[in-house]
Amino acid sequence: MKATVKIMLKNGVLDPQGKAIEHALGSLGFDGVDSVRQGKIIELDLAANTSEAQVKDMCEKLLANPVIEDYEILMVA
Amino acid sequence: MKATVKIMLKNGVLDPQGKAIEHALGSLGFDGVDSVRQGKIIELDLAANTSEAQVKDMCEKLLANPVIEDYEILMVA
Repeated sequence: MKATVKIMLKNGVLDPQGKAIEHALGSLGFDGVDSVRQGKIIELDLAANTSEAQVKDMCEKLLANPVIEDYEILMVA
Repeated sequence: MKATVKIMLKNGVLDPQGKAIEHALGSLGFDGVDSVRQGKIIELDLAANTSEAQVKDMCEKLLANPVIEDYEILMVA
């Protein structure tokens, strides 16, 4: 089975990468870009019996920094 | 309106970050992790009249490297 974990900085946490993209898009002439936030996506290929709780555990222990990041888990059978 | 761009390395392109995560999960005792791929997610807050073609243009010119990366655009009204 597969799991996809989407990790974004929490709202209110400064996102310098997102700001850099926002300015670069402006410099390239793309107007109307109000804000940009960048995050990570991690695709895990897992043994069939892996539970969502285990993936949550992976997020808390390694994949995300729960102090400054939010994560979303999507399990695909 | 909002657009989400998901950028992953193309299949066959070596993903050292993913490999590092895979090994770290193994070291932490998580079994059954067959493979891990890491990508980027970019959330854009756009002016209401922005078309998907414009977002595609942003991807080709700045957000993704189309030589080694695939991207997916999801427009949210």
